[in-house]
Amino acid sequence: MADFKVNILGCGSATPSLRHLPSCQVVDHRDKLMMVDCGEGAQLAMRRMRLKYSRLNNIFISHLHGDHCLGLPGLLSTMALHDIEGSVTVHTFEEGAELFLRIMNFFCRERTYELKFNIIRPENAIIYEDKSLTVETFPLYHRVPCVGYIFREKPKLRHINREMVDFYRVPVSMLHSIKEGADYELPDGTTIANERLTTPAEPSRSYAYCSDTIYSPRVAEAVKGVDIIYHEATYADAQADKARQRGHSTAGEAAKIALEAGAKKLIIGHYSKSYNDETQHLADARSIFPETIAANEGLTVDIT
Amino acid sequence: MADFKVNILGCGSATPSLRHLPSCQVVDHRDKLMMVDCGEGAQLAMRRMRLKYSRLNNIFISHLHGDHCLGLPGLLSTMALHDIEGSVTVHTFEEGAELFLRIMNFFCRERTYELKFNIIRPENAIIYEDKSLTVETFPLYHRVPCVGYIFREKPKLRHINREMVDFYRVPVSMLHSIKEGADYELPDGTTIANERLTTPAEPSRSYAYCSDTIYSPRVAEAVKGVDIIYHEATYADAQADKARQRGHSTAGEAAKIALEAGAKKLIIGHYSKSYNDETQHLADARSIFPETIAANEGLTVDIT
Repeated sequence: MADFKVNILGCGSATPSLRHLPSCQVVDHRDKLMMVDCGEGAQLAMRRMRLKYSRLNNIFISHLHGDHCLGLPGLLSTMALHDIEGSVTVHTFEEGAELFLRIMNFFCRERTYELKFNIIRPENAIIYEDKSLTVETFPLYHRVPCVGYIFREKPKLRHINREMVDFYRVPVSMLHSIKEGADYELPDGTTIANERLTTPAEPSRSYAYCSDTIYSPRVAEAVKGVDIIYHEATYADAQADKARQRGHSTAGEAAKIALEAGAKKLIIGHYSKSYNDETQHLADARSIFPETIAANEGLTVDIT
Repeated sequence: MADFKVNILGCGSATPSLRHLPSCQVVDHRDKLMMVDCGEGAQLAMRRMRLKYSRLNNIFISHLHGDHCLGLPGLLSTMALHDIEGSVTVHTFEEGAELFLRIMNFFCRERTYELKFNIIRPENAIIYEDKSLTVETFPLYHRVPCVGYIFREKPKLRHINREMVDFYRVPVSMLHSIKEGADYELPDGTTIANERLTTPAEPSRSYAYCSDTIYSPRVAEAVKGVDIIYHEATYADAQADKARQRGHSTAGEAAKIALEAGAKKLIIGHYSKSYNDETQHLADARSIFPETIAANEGLTVDIT
């Protein structure tokens, strides 16, 4: 089982429909769950995908439109009713933090966990960090302040070459710094290069979430080198005018971002309710970036 | 097709589950839709049951617990995105009105319809009236202020006995007052009793919604004579202690209310998530009041 993946809980836009829920994803990194956006119905979608409330400690909101955050009060209330402990941090713009705190103090004053808010701004910044992962914001270009998120594994440790380490009698106390890349100095002063003592670390993987936004080369720049990109594709290419008017992207534009950023895979979503299926979105995107898949409720994508 | 019915959109308690959504019903009286409570997911449940947003003008909230009203911001926002016109009135306690107005002004300031709030109190009062129906509040007994609602058809017009009216040469201008029950005076001063000129009107039907509440004979008193009663039955009888502790009723207690009130039919709902099905609830209720049915998402009950 992959230890880094993204679960699609909702990939519709604006209003829920019988086909799609509003925006919500859960990134799972080594069993830590991090939610990205929280449209109405997120709590139920978590249950449907068997994602445990007890493993969710961070919720990242991209912007303060209802279809990206109106599931928060229900989810946070339910977590209290399930006796979730520890802390839950909602990363959002200041006015969202104020409003959601007010709502929670009204409906769910007695919480079993500590509810925290981390105020974000539409800028490039590392806003979360644990021992193996960082989360960065970067600006998106929508009708209101909006950010994308990059989930990036920290550089991993190199693998010890046991034979070489034994041969040079490297003391155990040195092994950690050698895994981190340090050379080793023998008692006679000779330096043994790290490359002789280790083999390369696994590559650090990364995932970027880009919704909602018009097409902008600045987005491609921000997510350059990221392995897998989710980019909104509210409209098929034929509705490019509508996309522009409403601050959204087409499927072809999402594909251009993935191509320019050098991604390995693109996931499209945030579909307008005006379509009966996503065949055209997928065709438009794949004509530019073949490694495109269409998000759907219940889909899990490994970040590899 | 019946012109007075209730649609069950959600009949779970506290938190949505894979079996039940939180509380929400839509009463349909001659194609006017009136929502009672609005748990998270109400807007989607309306679509699933093909209930048109454009016919919904009144939303009645029983109390300010999240599972009875957290679907409001999403529903009201979606109605604006669907260009609903006219007005939508939310009937709720004052602090709920303030909070929901604030939320709506944040997420959906530009509304295509007029959003109104009607402040209710936990008392017996007619709070809504149109030409054929009234809606009354009455107190329920929960952990916070809470009301039940009675939807009651106004007295209907009697049917003209065409032969008798022709025989007495009653002028057309008099017919309406005769339908309302007036006698007719002949030119010679003789009074013709209304009963000779008309046959009885159809009975006026009524529906009561009672959730959330502990068992109280005062509730039975308030809904005396109502045709069909929905009463919460959060717990089966074996969990009566829990029901009492948390301000809820058992299935048997709901049945007692229906029996004491002289109802024709009882609908139970608001099931705790601790049950895998409602077999025991139904058995407990039917042992006291056989004409009990169990609410379920998607169920429609004719008020007859």
